[in-house]
Amino acid sequence: MKHLLSVTDIQQDIFNILQLAEQLKKDPWGHQILDKKVLAMIFEKASTRTRISFEVAMFQLGGHALFLSKSDLQLGRGELIEDTSRVMSRYVDGVMIRAVEHSDVVNFAQHSDVPVINGLTNLEHPCQALTDIFTIFEKKKTYRVHLTFVGDGNNVCNSLLLASSLVGMDMTVVCPERYEPDVEIINKAKSFALKSGSQIEVTNNISEGIKDADVVYTDVWVSMGEENETDKRLKVLNDYQVNSEILNLANPDAIVMHCLPAIRGQEITEDVISCDQSAIWDQAENRLHVQKAILYTLLGKF
Amino acid sequence: MKHLLSVTDIQQDIFNILQLAEQLKKDPWGHQILDKKVLAMIFEKASTRTRISFEVAMFQLGGHALFLSKSDLQLGRGELIEDTSRVMSRYVDGVMIRAVEHSDVVNFAQHSDVPVINGLTNLEHPCQALTDIFTIFEKKKTYRVHLTFVGDGNNVCNSLLLASSLVGMDMTVVCPERYEPDVEIINKAKSFALKSGSQIEVTNNISEGIKDADVVYTDVWVSMGEENETDKRLKVLNDYQVNSEILNLANPDAIVMHCLPAIRGQEITEDVISCDQSAIWDQAENRLHVQKAILYTLLGKF
Amino acid sequence: MKHLLSVTDIQQDIFNILQLAEQLKKDPWGHQILDKKVLAMIFEKASTRTRISFEVAMFQLGGHALFLSKSDLQLGRGELIEDTSRVMSRYVDGVMIRAVEHSDVVNFAQHSDVPVINGLTNLEHPCQALTDIFTIFEKKKTYRVHLTFVGDGNNVCNSLLLASSLVGMDMTVVCPERYEPDVEIINKAKSFALKSGSQIEVTNNISEGIKDADVVYTDVWVSMGEENETDKRLKVLNDYQVNSEILNLANPDAIVMHCLPAIRGQEITEDVISCDQSAIWDQAENRLHVQKAILYTLLGKF
Repeated sequence: MKHLLSVTDIQQDIFNILQLAEQLKKDPWGHQILDKKVLAMIFEKASTRTRISFEVAMFQLGGHALFLSKSDLQLGRGELIEDTSRVMSRYVDGVMIRAVEHSDVVNFAQHSDVPVINGLTNLEHPCQALTDIFTIFEKKKTYRVHLTFVGDGNNVCNSLLLASSLVGMDMTVVCPERYEPDVEIINKAKSFALKSGSQIEVTNNISEGIKDADVVYTDVWVSMGEENETDKRLKVLNDYQVNSEILNLANPDAIVMHCLPAIRGQEITEDVISCDQSAIWDQAENRLHVQKAILYTLLGKF
Repeated sequence: MKHLLSVTDIQQDIFNILQLAEQLKKDPWGHQILDKKVLAMIFEKASTRTRISFEVAMFQLGGHALFLSKSDLQLGRGELIEDTSRVMSRYVDGVMIRAVEHSDVVNFAQHSDVPVINGLTNLEHPCQALTDIFTIFEKKKTYRVHLTFVGDGNNVCNSLLLASSLVGMDMTVVCPERYEPDVEIINKAKSFALKSGSQIEVTNNISEGIKDADVVYTDVWVSMGEENETDKRLKVLNDYQVNSEILNLANPDAIVMHCLPAIRGQEITEDVISCDQSAIWDQAENRLHVQKAILYTLLGKF
Repeated sequence: MKHLLSVTDIQQDIFNILQLAEQLKKDPWGHQILDKKVLAMIFEKASTRTRISFEVAMFQLGGHALFLSKSDLQLGRGELIEDTSRVMSRYVDGVMIRAVEHSDVVNFAQHSDVPVINGLTNLEHPCQALTDIFTIFEKKKTYRVHLTFVGDGNNVCNSLLLASSLVGMDMTVVCPERYEPDVEIINKAKSFALKSGSQIEVTNNISEGIKDADVVYTDVWVSMGEENETDKRLKVLNDYQVNSEILNLANPDAIVMHCLPAIRGQEITEDVISCDQSAIWDQAENRLHVQKAILYTLLGKF
């Protein structure tokens, strides 16, 4: 049995998942491979894409997804994570969790007899990163491209570092000082990169980092739970906006990506969101197809 | 592709929908015509009938309904309606929305690639009005009857004006001054009435308006979102209660309708709710059958 | 048509339900006996086991469960319980309710045309008690054992008294003065016990009550809704903790049960929860199987 808490958990399976996603996208209804399986989804925080794409994914695969917000659960009354985990293993075939603290998801998985999928924590967002790599391959027909992530070195950035370094994609993170991605994750990514032959860089200089980029990626500057730092973050990150001027510094056929929700006028401008180079809506759609591949890989084999 | 934001959106299809609903009511499980389709339902406000009837409708038709309260969505964190709409079009086959502002539903529909159904806004409640016309035909075997709506000229009243004038039903709205239905809607209804041959009237005089009524309809005096006007509304609307005395002014075989929830002692009395003339519970049930017909008409054709 | 508001409601069916649960546990997917049926679930209070086990149960039986929290419903806006009940009877095949007040569930059932299942009230928790009896039989191969419930004579204790006395199981309740189970329920249990040949006792003396126990059962000291009495309760119930010292007073092969959530250090200790005698996780799982039997018994026959 396998969990997906970090991209590193599926390092052996990453190419299989990406290829499976391609097949599933071609024939969304042709694979009732999770017939009669139930996925529980626990959300500590709001969600649009994760919630809907997982629920539709389970339905299309012949199974059922059960939505649980934290306030609906006894967890909200203080039941231990480990007890909730043990009990849920008796009822369902897999659990997807969106939690504030990554350690809570790790703790849940340690006591679970069924696969646990990280649906975003403060540390990683593996389902998003796998989707992003899939989308880049779909657009560029190769993993050997240069991805530049601009802005806050957050959970999505962390998972992208791991995923890109596993598939041999070069990745540059452009961010202000003290907004770098997690140090341990950078180190892991660099060790993966040694094997796959990709380059991993972190820089504070946006014009340098975006040079030769085939993919320009950004995300919100204030993630869920950081609302009290809003003013400070907007100020520090102000020079890291992806606008048309910045986009012009990348390769002319570069695509623009954003995992949404987007705040126009902060990390990205309206003209960039809606320009021809934007892959943002296809990227959102691909959550569905890639997560179906993840679900099948984790839940389908036993 | 077609939306149902206002009754006017399905003016060409109204008789087809009503006939289809009749068939579906006869054989609730016989038509798995939305097999594998997913309807997302977004609720900004509480709901009993709309929520349950749509979810059961999709299940009976072979599909799945996905319940989203606004607080569960990134919409609640400020994601643009248009972005949510664009993304949802990638995952689901249709969207039902209950929103405070009608303009939000219009905006959502403008950016949607899948059909959008208005599940109640401040301006209209088309699913309710179509159900009501269906129920009246079921009881009276003809559309050529006289419907009198008593009370606040609200969203339900607006949609009823459009629906009745389309099918050739006479409709009188009895309400206090300044509680009239939307002026533009009255005008549209009158233009439909010219074609269909029905009579549309608005009056402040209850005994005049209820004379010759075949259907006496009322709704709550304080709709969701108007709670701060409660005292004023109860006072102004006090003379417009549907009680047995008022009901006696209508035709002796008049039926009583109410779209629920009802507040006994305000817009209606207990004896009227539970009298033999009451069609209220059949009316509630018919939401299911009529919405199945709406879902099939909008989602079933592509 | 039959409701399950109290264990007494199914006194004729209790052995059938327990046997059916055994069959369903052996082949969870082999009985699509509620094909196309819909169960509405209304929750006034948080839930983990009840929510998940009922939703999975309906899915495994071929039906659908519809989750409604009170705040999502017009009930939350003050719609009468009886109106909600009447309307829901038109849409669904059964209703499960978790409510604060038992009388609300009784009222709901009185106006319902479909079976109503009590998913916990301040007075009873019949689904839990039936599961517990099932679990005891699974472990002990006979109902003729001695069950000792230690702690607060709450809703679970009430339902256990009724269930154990129906199947011929001896039951002792050990609790502080004024924390005894409901008097009427004790009397009913004693009258059932006369027929079935079991012994029903209530005592304040823990070492006396636990002597010869084959099953040691406890539950939280502060139930949902009693949070303002927390300090008082913790003090009064302090001597009624199930710890290893107390467990040693029971029969050496006694099993430990708890309906969860558990608060370690209050009603139970960590070493007891995780000792070899603990049947707690199997007990939780059995909610699923027993509730499937309940659902089939109530919803499957018409």
